[in-house]
Amino acid sequence: MSKRVFLFSEGETNKDVLGGKGASLSTMTNLGLPIPFGFTISTQTCIEFLNNGKNYPEGLWDSVLLSMKEVEKISGKQFGNVDNPLLVSVRSGAAISMPGMMDTVLNVGLNNDIVNAMIKLTNNSRFVKDAYRRLIQMFSDVVCNLNLEPFNDLLDQTKHDAGVEHDFELNDDQLDGLISGYLQLFRENFGSEFPQDPYTQLDLAVKAVFNSWNNKRAIDYRNHENIPHDIGTAVNIQSMVFGNYGDSSGTGVLFTRNPSTGENRIYGEFLINAQGEDVVAGIRTPISISSLQDKWPDIYKELVDISKKLEHHYKDVQDIEFTIEESKLYMLQTRNGKRTGAASAKIAFDLFSEGLITKEEAVLRVTPRDVEESLFPSVVWENQQKSSYYDLINIEQALQTKSLNELKKSASTKIADKIGHGLPAGPGAATGHVIFDSDLAEKIIKGTIEAPFEVTMTRSIGDRVVPRLILVKKETSPEDFHGMVASVGILTMRGGLTSHAALVGRQIGKRVIVGSSVSGLELRGDSLGTKSGVVVKEGDIITIEIFDEGLVYVGALPIITPDKLPNELETILDWADEIAKIKVRTNADKRNDTTVAVNFKTTGTGLARTEHQFFDALDLVREMILADTVVERRKILDKMVKLQRNDFIDLFTTINGLPMTIRLLDPPLHEFLPNELELRQRIWREQLHPDSEESRVLRKVLYYQESNPMLGLRGTRLGLLFPEITEMQTRAIIEAAIQVKAQGIAVFPEIMVPLVGFRTEFSEARKIIDSTAEKVFKEKQTRLDYLVGTMIEIPRAALTADEMAAGVDGADFFSFGTNDLHQMTLGFSRDDVAKFLPFYLENKIIEEDPFQTIEETGVGRLMNMCVELGRASASKSNKYLKVGICGEQGGDPKSIDFCYRLGLDYVSCSPFRVPVARLAAAHATLHNGDVDPKYGKKLE
Amino acid sequence: MSKRVFLFSEGETNKDVLGGKGASLSTMTNLGLPIPFGFTISTQTCIEFLNNGKNYPEGLWDSVLLSMKEVEKISGKQFGNVDNPLLVSVRSGAAISMPGMMDTVLNVGLNNDIVNAMIKLTNNSRFVKDAYRRLIQMFSDVVCNLNLEPFNDLLDQTKHDAGVEHDFELNDDQLDGLISGYLQLFRENFGSEFPQDPYTQLDLAVKAVFNSWNNKRAIDYRNHENIPHDIGTAVNIQSMVFGNYGDSSGTGVLFTRNPSTGENRIYGEFLINAQGEDVVAGIRTPISISSLQDKWPDIYKELVDISKKLEHHYKDVQDIEFTIEESKLYMLQTRNGKRTGAASAKIAFDLFSEGLITKEEAVLRVTPRDVEESLFPSVVWENQQKSSYYDLINIEQALQTKSLNELKKSASTKIADKIGHGLPAGPGAATGHVIFDSDLAEKIIKGTIEAPFEVTMTRSIGDRVVPRLILVKKETSPEDFHGMVASVGILTMRGGLTSHAALVGRQIGKRVIVGSSVSGLELRGDSLGTKSGVVVKEGDIITIEIFDEGLVYVGALPIITPDKLPNELETILDWADEIAKIKVRTNADKRNDTTVAVNFKTTGTGLARTEHQFFDALDLVREMILADTVVERRKILDKMVKLQRNDFIDLFTTINGLPMTIRLLDPPLHEFLPNELELRQRIWREQLHPDSEESRVLRKVLYYQESNPMLGLRGTRLGLLFPEITEMQTRAIIEAAIQVKAQGIAVFPEIMVPLVGFRTEFSEARKIIDSTAEKVFKEKQTRLDYLVGTMIEIPRAALTADEMAAGVDGADFFSFGTNDLHQMTLGFSRDDVAKFLPFYLENKIIEEDPFQTIEETGVGRLMNMCVELGRASASKSNKYLKVGICGEQGGDPKSIDFCYRLGLDYVSCSPFRVPVARLAAAHATLHNGDVDPKYGKKLE
Repeated sequence: MSKRVFLFSEGETNKDVLGGKGASLSTMTNLGLPIPFGFTISTQTCIEFLNNGKNYPEGLWDSVLLSMKEVEKISGKQFGNVDNPLLVSVRSGAAISMPGMMDTVLNVGLNNDIVNAMIKLTNNSRFVKDAYRRLIQMFSDVVCNLNLEPFNDLLDQTKHDAGVEHDFELNDDQLDGLISGYLQLFRENFGSEFPQDPYTQLDLAVKAVFNSWNNKRAIDYRNHENIPHDIGTAVNIQSMVFGNYGDSSGTGVLFTRNPSTGENRIYGEFLINAQGEDVVAGIRTPISISSLQDKWPDIYKELVDISKKLEHHYKDVQDIEFTIEESKLYMLQTRNGKRTGAASAKIAFDLFSEGLITKEEAVLRVTPRDVEESLFPSVVWENQQKSSYYDLINIEQALQTKSLNELKKSASTKIADKIGHGLPAGPGAATGHVIFDSDLAEKIIKGTIEAPFEVTMTRSIGDRVVPRLILVKKETSPEDFHGMVASVGILTMRGGLTSHAALVGRQIGKRVIVGSSVSGLELRGDSLGTKSGVVVKEGDIITIEIFDEGLVYVGALPIITPDKLPNELETILDWADEIAKIKVRTNADKRNDTTVAVNFKTTGTGLARTEHQFFDALDLVREMILADTVVERRKILDKMVKLQRNDFIDLFTTINGLPMTIRLLDPPLHEFLPNELELRQRIWREQLHPDSEESRVLRKVLYYQESNPMLGLRGTRLGLLFPEITEMQTRAIIEAAIQVKAQGIAVFPEIMVPLVGFRTEFSEARKIIDSTAEKVFKEKQTRLDYLVGTMIEIPRAALTADEMAAGVDGADFFSFGTNDLHQMTLGFSRDDVAKFLPFYLENKIIEEDPFQTIEETGVGRLMNMCVELGRASASKSNKYLKVGICGEQGGDPKSIDFCYRLGLDYVSCSPFRVPVARLAAAHATLHNGDVDPKYGKKLE
Repeated sequence: MSKRVFLFSEGETNKDVLGGKGASLSTMTNLGLPIPFGFTISTQTCIEFLNNGKNYPEGLWDSVLLSMKEVEKISGKQFGNVDNPLLVSVRSGAAISMPGMMDTVLNVGLNNDIVNAMIKLTNNSRFVKDAYRRLIQMFSDVVCNLNLEPFNDLLDQTKHDAGVEHDFELNDDQLDGLISGYLQLFRENFGSEFPQDPYTQLDLAVKAVFNSWNNKRAIDYRNHENIPHDIGTAVNIQSMVFGNYGDSSGTGVLFTRNPSTGENRIYGEFLINAQGEDVVAGIRTPISISSLQDKWPDIYKELVDISKKLEHHYKDVQDIEFTIEESKLYMLQTRNGKRTGAASAKIAFDLFSEGLITKEEAVLRVTPRDVEESLFPSVVWENQQKSSYYDLINIEQALQTKSLNELKKSASTKIADKIGHGLPAGPGAATGHVIFDSDLAEKIIKGTIEAPFEVTMTRSIGDRVVPRLILVKKETSPEDFHGMVASVGILTMRGGLTSHAALVGRQIGKRVIVGSSVSGLELRGDSLGTKSGVVVKEGDIITIEIFDEGLVYVGALPIITPDKLPNELETILDWADEIAKIKVRTNADKRNDTTVAVNFKTTGTGLARTEHQFFDALDLVREMILADTVVERRKILDKMVKLQRNDFIDLFTTINGLPMTIRLLDPPLHEFLPNELELRQRIWREQLHPDSEESRVLRKVLYYQESNPMLGLRGTRLGLLFPEITEMQTRAIIEAAIQVKAQGIAVFPEIMVPLVGFRTEFSEARKIIDSTAEKVFKEKQTRLDYLVGTMIEIPRAALTADEMAAGVDGADFFSFGTNDLHQMTLGFSRDDVAKFLPFYLENKIIEEDPFQTIEETGVGRLMNMCVELGRASASKSNKYLKVGICGEQGGDPKSIDFCYRLGLDYVSCSPFRVPVARLAAAHATLHNGDVDPKYGKKLE
């Protein structure tokens, strides 16, 4: 049996054993810092207790008693001794922080006799009686699980009768009345007297803390945060110190550096004559920690010294709780401080500059989430400090407005009114038209129906411009999923940070405010109203801004998305690039997107789709599809080749010497054809002749209609059936490359064949590509290098990767199309998954949305197989097979870690994910060590 | 360098070296049979020649000359000697039979001088001159590649001038004229004289035979039959014998047993005073071989003796060519005789009974195709011999007519008129409505439009009754694929046995006649007409019957499908069952189908779908789908449970103690809902209110609509989202099983969860199933054993088979759903594949239709992985994991062989495939040896 009880002075500082709080107290004791002495019962003891029918394991109580003797010795007081009484706190503290989820009992050791004795001893009866009142209330709640309502009612009644507002304004008599009322309530509700024996109090308090490990909110929190259920909480028993002893006492919290900006200066709040819970309760306004400098310069200096000491020990910013009792400083807790994305990089950079951490550690200190936060869209406020280091471009609106100045101008003239606030569930900011119905939202976005209001806020999906919607609901349920997907932001009246809207909304990357009814917002029939009488109707524009809290404005505010990172973050990402062994490319098929990615230091384009080039020339494409002969088709393709070539010239110029993977035409032809229903309606209404153009088009629409278009005539199947399309695209690529190269810009075209399942398909496609390229080289009297590779998105391609890569004319590279690969390997149609995926996630049938994070067990096993088979096969022809990923999971940190372990050469993600991916790529190396790039790291 | 030239008497009989014909001649020489002596140039020499710039390898010609000396010695004649001339034939003969694909030159050694000498010698100038005329013609064609038309014109002119019909009626003078005309044509067209030197003739003939290996039709044939291109043809050089010497000469072919019935009696045809090609030409009517018994009893006896000798040597029926020259019998060739399916089993059984072959050999002698043929539908003719051993049930029509007598009666009164014939491309028989347009055919079958004619011939697809169509086209192209699929039979005017209609039609299991224009059938606009003026219009009924030839009748004939096998085949299949290590179950979900399979000795039901039970109760199902609450749904399900239970009682009773795998509901809900377009049309036309029932249904239809329904909300996803459906089905199964068991019939229910991709899905489903079963057991105060297993149809399920099978509550069995597994692994939507699969097959991008035959390289690799992972994992819990396959490939012999190598426990196929599968299962053991049933045989 391992040791269960540890004095703070014993030297043990293992968090897993002592929990976070216990470990920090022991550490601070080791560092010689002033702390109220005490001891910790180990986390494992909690599990023993719970598994032992909620009984102490043998010997535990004896150890506790022995330790109490030590505490008495150090404090010079005695537990239960009316002459010199020791009071203790009994606090929970798990190895992984679960703030507020478990219980704490303070002032343990007080009883009727000791109260009287202490009053004499301290000469401060209000303080002592208040402490007793608090003990009874906390004990009733935490230990005895009594309903607190009658206690609160009595407190309110007492304050009301006394004509005061705050607890601390009650006088001696009033407190006496409250205490006897509390004791009576305890008796009536619990069925026996409030325990007067201090050790009985201690015994019950320890058991209560153990039991709080399994209270509902703790279990829910662990489920949500993926914290194991079998690690238990420690119990910390510690001498009480009192910040509410009088005017030379107080309590405070501080960060050793500013957690919002990272500025290297202690930062925090302090409340004179108060206990910790008073700070949290927010009854009085605390003073800034810096004001202590003048008030109590010695204590301020002590705090700064201790801060530096703790930072040097933990090598990170600390979030510290402390109490001053009668001018003496006591440290209560320290832990690594949470910080904003912006602060994170600055802190890490500064800690490195101060020699506290290495570059690698600095890189690890910044989380992908921090980088994300630095890139969240936000409202452009006139003269606003926090975005001053951005070189701002509004990406979401820039395509229309083009200039930041215009944006700023509009910001200064069009400030909207704040109408409410709520919990910050999905960070960022968004402006859009209010919509109250999920079905309607989806239909508007899909274009099934027109928006029933004037649309002024729009965004692009692929090549379509759709209204920008903000879904407003009482609360959301799985049936709203499609509406949430269709919207840019979500605002709910009810629900907390773990509500459906918060969890799912954040997961699908939306801006989300929940629980906004606290601010008086209310959904009434078909409108959103405020107490002050503002009424927002369907289609009206609101703005939501979510950082530390969620703010709701009526009207449009300009939203900006930064395309430049804070300097320290830039530096840290440069370090990350030095560490990373897996490159970060981008998925970009337009000049603007490519520019953003290049600014973010992408190493190339991993996926340039060519579809939009077809949508841009939709009339030509339809003509081509309607053509009945190769000759007709070729005539049209001759026109298209020019359009495509110009587009590729643009892209090659923008990517400026980096490699660019261009995917040949992928979508099924019917995507380019008009909507069946509309055609039919028109034909019916206008009674059009079967020989009419519309009828002819309808027949083609019907011909190209498919039961499962995802698995139908698309990708290389199209390119082989209509080789003239493959020829046209190859010609456009090679001609563009030759032209750009002639201008002195290096070009590395990598032509990618989509939807390949059989080696024969790849070989046929390659034949068309190579022979077309040769033709162009001959015509232009020059040549250049290019690669031909294949998407790996059909499971069979992965299963037969050895064939795909075999021989000198095998695929030069693989690029995992993880979207389709997941669709086929899991049998999940992404477009249809909304009907069951939320249910699956909620019921833990699957753990993560596979369209966000690579599903490692199944799909990952297949990918691993593919890389090994492919690389081994290529190496037989003395070829190194480059392998990357261009599915959307390529920007997900967990997936990047997996890709690194697979030994991939690069991930590719959307331009705005490039910085996140660069960081994640470095983290992957640091977390996993070196990985053989040839075959990857054996998984499992 | 290995030996190139082999005298027949040298003992070498290796077919790979000598080709089929050469080997048979050497073998017959060894057996002491009378053959025209000669020698063979090896097949490998052909490849040497072709690789050597079409030059003889060194030493070859010397060997030929040496061998010619031996032939001269044995024949007592001399090549080129005008006094005693030897004539030889130069014939091709590859190791694998390629009938008619390569060339032959007869009568080599004749020239102007020798003709004259031979006339004196033989005193038969017509015969000699005819031989010379033939040599010149054949030589011009085969050796010199001259256009034969002027030669044929001259022959026709000569006959016309002579007023005769046949070649052999020409007299001496006329033949002289013909010869000098031929020689002149040769000179004019070839540019030099016809070679008079016998050795020059021989040299050129040998080279011509070598070259014919690479003529276009030979290459096409090899491509089609998957014969390698590098095995070459042998050249057989052999003394000529002449069946056209006079009236004591002749030529014939015989089978040592009747190839149609298997009767043990020589069977064949004989033509007096004729050479082989005359038999083939069909100019004169041959006499039956049995008539030789009276005419030339000695020769007849010799033929019977030789037949027995050859059968004993080859242990199989022989197909023999022979010639009688001046009453002396010569054997020209022997090979294993082709036979009908019916004959095959009888012959194998008899050969076993005669002690010539073992049981195993007998089983191997019968091909899956033979079994298929025994089960082809055929026309019921009054008193028709060939179906007399069948206990006939008309499966295709029996559901309506119910009695064989009625069928026979209808056959005797409703005999239709024969209107044409063509090539027999897809065997069997079919009756149906003529349709000329593939789109129309598909639409009629899909129910998109109503048939524009009165429908009297119908069939069932799933639970729908659709018209029975026969597609009639000039010829078919890939664009007709969907029409071919929609039809039961296909009739084309043009094309041969390797045309699109023949290849694809047979591949998709249709009855096919091609090239019927030879019989005067003609497509004229919108009708099919005969020379005699019969006109068949769209919708008219025709019958096609395809065995040895393809016959076309106007009108309906009763079609029967035998459900009992010939006795000998029954016996052989019983032997097969003893050998087979892989069981054969059936896919059957109705009583009738199950009965058929039980009669065919299935070992259980491998797949009983439950969909039809939902389609049978469509109104209830729709009500259930429209229900908005679980309570409403449960109310409806309470009604459905009774219907399902009765159905399962039926099935358990029919399968009578064999195991039965029941798959829970699989299809997406929208399959049970009405057609969107029809609903919309109705709502528009009748201007129905948005609150109308129709509008409400439309909203549900739209809600359940999916982009890719195959990968959408179906299978276990439905069963988990609506657990009440899973509960209802489990209850119905278990209640039925208890009831049937109470009647003394053993029951082995195996409940199969469809579309599982994650172990968690299976576990959730199993929880519902097990708890429901327990509830029923409690209610009924009894219990019984059942298994719960999973379909393996989602690639991820196969990839994570170890998880699926892990633990005692893991899957009890796997059943590969190879239809969906292929769809997802290959990314082929079966419903949409028609647009590119025919193109892929034609262009050899894929080799076989994966929906017929398991795609081994990719899908097979995945299946192998699945079996190994699953079995190893189950064995950790001391469980044996039963693995089977229930996709349609389960009835395909090649796939069965693969499944056996995988170590599967059973295949499951449609009832009528059970006999084929039983045979294929035995063949798998015999071809592969024993396979460890636990992990299978390592593939690759």
